[in-house]
Formats: sequence, structure tokens, C-alpha cells
Amino acid sequence: MNVSDIGEFGLIERLANAVGASQPADLIVSIGDDAAAWRVDDAVELATTDTLVEGVHFLPGRTPWADLGWKALAVNVSDIAAMGGLPQYALVTLALPPETPVQAVDELYEGLGECGREYGVAVAGGDVVRAPLVVISVALLGRAEADARGRPRLMRRDAARAGYAVALTGTLGGSAAGLRRLKEGAPPDDPLARAHLRPRPPLAAARRAAELGVPCAIDISDGLLQDLGHVCGMSGLGAVLRAAALPVRLELRDAYPDDALALACTGGEDYELLFVAPRQTLEALGPEITVIGEMVEDAERRARLVDGSGEEIRLPAAGWDHLRP
Amino acid sequence: MNVSDIGEFGLIERLANAVGASQPADLIVSIGDDAAAWRVDDAVELATTDTLVEGVHFLPGRTPWADLGWKALAVNVSDIAAMGGLPQYALVTLALPPETPVQAVDELYEGLGECGREYGVAVAGGDVVRAPLVVISVALLGRAEADARGRPRLMRRDAARAGYAVALTGTLGGSAAGLRRLKEGAPPDDPLARAHLRPRPPLAAARRAAELGVPCAIDISDGLLQDLGHVCGMSGLGAVLRAAALPVRLELRDAYPDDALALACTGGEDYELLFVAPRQTLEALGPEITVIGEMVEDAERRARLVDGSGEEIRLPAAGWDHLRP
Repeated sequence: MNVSDIGEFGLIERLANAVGASQPADLIVSIGDDAAAWRVDDAVELATTDTLVEGVHFLPGRTPWADLGWKALAVNVSDIAAMGGLPQYALVTLALPPETPVQAVDELYEGLGECGREYGVAVAGGDVVRAPLVVISVALLGRAEADARGRPRLMRRDAARAGYAVALTGTLGGSAAGLRRLKEGAPPDDPLARAHLRPRPPLAAARRAAELGVPCAIDISDGLLQDLGHVCGMSGLGAVLRAAALPVRLELRDAYPDDALALACTGGEDYELLFVAPRQTLEALGPEITVIGEMVEDAERRARLVDGSGEEIRLPAAGWDHLRP
Repeated sequence: MNVSDIGEFGLIERLANAVGASQPADLIVSIGDDAAAWRVDDAVELATTDTLVEGVHFLPGRTPWADLGWKALAVNVSDIAAMGGLPQYALVTLALPPETPVQAVDELYEGLGECGREYGVAVAGGDVVRAPLVVISVALLGRAEADARGRPRLMRRDAARAGYAVALTGTLGGSAAGLRRLKEGAPPDDPLARAHLRPRPPLAAARRAAELGVPCAIDISDGLLQDLGHVCGMSGLGAVLRAAALPVRLELRDAYPDDALALACTGGEDYELLFVAPRQTLEALGPEITVIGEMVEDAERRARLVDGSGEEIRLPAAGWDHLRP
């Protein structure tokens, strides 16, 4: 049996089982959420890590180095935002072929620095190693606040309840459409390509959501249906999303009308956020978010997309698994 | 100009310059030490990251997976120990070819878990990605204590003073000799091979040193002379080491008598610690450590190895740079 047979999520489960036997008392959130969380005195520290591999997560030669630096940090900011936290310190690991031009690395650092300034993150350390291909791994540390009773304000994947509404920041499908455009030869300043190369996690909205008491959130990294599926699995529920309510990105509808819905639901990498909470809590967040469905009782624990008559719409692929073909 | 021209340390300096413009007030130690450190309320958090790349840091097919898991975590424990801290939480990033057997990953997790239990580290999260070769990256978080006046007890690279003694835990050269033995076909349970495959950072000695007020330490990862050279550079001093005082590992003297001194001084990966402090502070640490030299004024800021008559001994290579050929 190879790792491609059990996939990324099967492997993560095995890791949790192998090392999860004795968890320290200060550890609040361990393997399986957007970030880990533990107490440090009265504060709550958050930590997450994400990696971009040449040829797997970015197109060699067609991804500007500065964009790569931006994205390597931004995808981690997205994870801290999805927990309701404030990102603070990054450790950056660069694996590089020795023949990489120094200019390329300078540009990568430049993009990383831009993203850091945008989100208030300081690069505090890292590691540089030799490798036959480029791999960028960022570990990002942050913190969460506590409420008046000292409980950490964390948005967790296991905190959805039946009847809660599901809402989304921003629009869907821009990143997947941008990747397709880049593969078709579009320049990196094409608007859809920008959405793919420079994702902008909605940190401010996430912070407001955590403050308002939104109990559950996840970021759209692997695809809407798959990511919401993690909330379903960990909360023991199903979800129903109305296709007509999805805020599919307009340029995507124009560029690829036939595939727009599939790209929006399964393309991934939009790095928008799903908030799951009582409807009135979500309404307090204002018009920036769109309610797209709700959590329901469901023994299968699945996220389903339905049409106007409530029939399920089946899409070609569920989402992105890092180890499956 | 390629990155192999400026090397790992040139790149790290460029990163520090590119992103280091505005450092937050809570950040105590940034890029350039064994780990980063920042304040969280009254506590001090530590963070470090280290990566092992197939074919660069370990021999594909000749490194047992469990040993790889152990080492990936142990090298990070070594960095936290070198700061005087207590390691606590690890994030583990695995980049794997899809055809990797699940059994291999289970063994890797097993070794990682063993090391975690040995050093009190909980694996709190991570990431699994596809790649054409195996890369294991661990980010390790820890904490340091504060002294009675609230100052963090950190052992920093820039805190050496002229006249301080330099002392070493354990012995030197076992790892480099073990790597050579493995390349010659020795089995992984050969005693020298064990030193290479399962380094055991002296965490307890490091914690005692920090408590006793040792102000400066570094771990032996890239080679004794090069690592002590970082202390020299950051403290604005030179160092003189007496060759006769070096605790070269006995099996190494037996196995490779002609190369023993060079392997001990430049081989690296012993993951022992250098403590730099006033002699009486080091004496309080007891017989577990060996005084091997002292810090001196030196405009060149170099670590020199000398013979009985004070003549410098020049060795073939200075140490390990991750990007140079």
C-alpha cells in the first residue's frame, strides 16, 4: 500500500494516532484543524505550516518569484485567520538548487516581505538547504485572544451545530481559473492570474468574526466542498449549499462559463473563509459575507451542493488531495 | 550570480536585510541565532526549524525511516537546547512521492514519536504534500524561563566575552565517522552509524547551563570550527581551541586515525553543545563537559585550532555550507 492509496488525510490521521497518545494539558487544538493552539500563561499561541513544491504547487518558470514569496506566507496567514488569530512571526525554509540565481531569491524575499508588511508578520528565522528543486515551507506563529471569561476565542472545525448558517467571504473560483489561464499562457498580471498568484486572506473579517463569537471557520484551500467536508466530519454533521447562492467570480463566469460552477466548488486556493454560526451572528458581520447554506443532521457527514429544487448537483471532482494522482 | 556563490549564510543575511526593517518590540532574538525568541506576556517563546532533504541530508535507501523521523525532530531539539529553552510543540511537514509505502511513513512517525517522548515534545500539527523526493521539515516551538528580575534566560550567540572559556558536551566526530561507515556499507546498528542516525542533544545539560547563567551557546550542526565561528562573528571576537583538549570520539580514533581530528572539527552533525562562559560558571556544570579553549580579541573573528606550541593547525575544510558544492 502506497501513500497515494490512503491520501493526504489518511496520512494525517495516522500521524495523529502515532504521536497523539499523550497530549500536554496546555494544548488546546492539535492535529486536524487549520492551526494548533496552546496556552502560554494567559495567552493562546497558534502555529501552522504550509509548503509549496515546484511543479506541484506552482508552475516552474511561469510563477514570478515575488509572487511565490507572497503566496508562501499568505497561505499560512489564511490558516491563522481561519482560527480567528493574529499572525505574528514566520520561520521560512527555502530548499534551493545551488544554481538558483541570487536575483530570484531576492525577489522571493521581496514578495515575502510585502506580504509580511500587509499582514503585520515579522520573519524571525528559518533555514536554507540544498535540494534538486525549489521547496518553500513557512511556519507561522500567531496568537488568539481570550474572552471576558478567559476562554480562547478560537474558530474551530468541530464547533458547527445543526441549523447554523454557512457564510463565505469574497468570491469563489478566481484562483482555479487563474491557474488555467496561466497554463494557457496568460501573463502574471492577468486579473484571474493575480487571484491565483497573490491570494489575499480576509484577516480583518476573520478577526471581526472571532470577536463576534463565530465559533467555527475554515479556509478555502483544497476546494469549497472538500474544506466544508472537514467541518462536517469534525462536527458530526452534513451541510447543504445552494448553487444559486454561491458568489462565483464574475471573470470566471465570463472566461469559462461551462466549468464555472465546478471550478468554484472544487478548484481550491481561493483562501477565502467559511464562517459557520447562528444566522444572526453572521448578519452582524455585514454585507461583506454571503450566506450560502446551512449545517444539517446527516449520518454521512457530507457537504452537498443542491439546485433550486433541492436536488444534489454532482461535480466531477471533490477537491484537492496532495497525495492522490 | 548563483546562490552557490554566496552560500547559505550569504542568503540568510540577505533575508535578514530584506525583511528585518521593522522588528516588533516583543521580538527578542531574530534571524541568525539557533532559534527565534519573543515575549508572550511574562513568558518567552522560542521557535526554530530544520529540514532534511533526501540525497542531501540522508542517504536514500540506507537510512531507516524510524531513524529519519527521530533525527528530523532531534536536530530541532538541539536548536532549542542551544538557546537554553524547553522544547514543547512540533509541526511536521512531510513532502513525499506518491509511491512511498505507507509502512515507511508509519515507521517515520514511530521514530518521530520516540524522539518526542524522549524530549517531552508533542506533535501538534503539520502538512503533507506531494514531491518527487522526500523532504522532512520540522518547526519546533519551545519556551525559555525568566530569571528573578524577569530577564529571559537565553544563551545567545552574541553574548561571548574575551576571556570566557569554551566548553563542549560529549564527544566529537561520531556522526561524521558514522556517515562514512554507512557509505562504506556498515549496518545502521553500527555504533558510529547510530551516532549519525540518532543524535541525542544534551537537553538536560543545556537546561542546567541556562539556569547557572551561561550566557552563550551554540549547537554543533555544521562543524565545530564553523559553528564556533558564528559565535565569534556575532560576538566580535576570536576563539582559540587546543587540539589536545578536544574529546574526539574513541571509536573514531580507532576507525579513521588519520582523519580523526579533521572529522571531529569539521564533520558536523554531532548535535553536542558549546557553552561559552566564565570558567567558574562552566566548572559548576561538573565533569560532563570538557573545556576546550577560550575566547580572545581577534579582528578576524575566527575560531582557530592550535597545537601544543600554539601554532595554528589548518584543516582541509571549514565545515558544512548547505548551498556550496
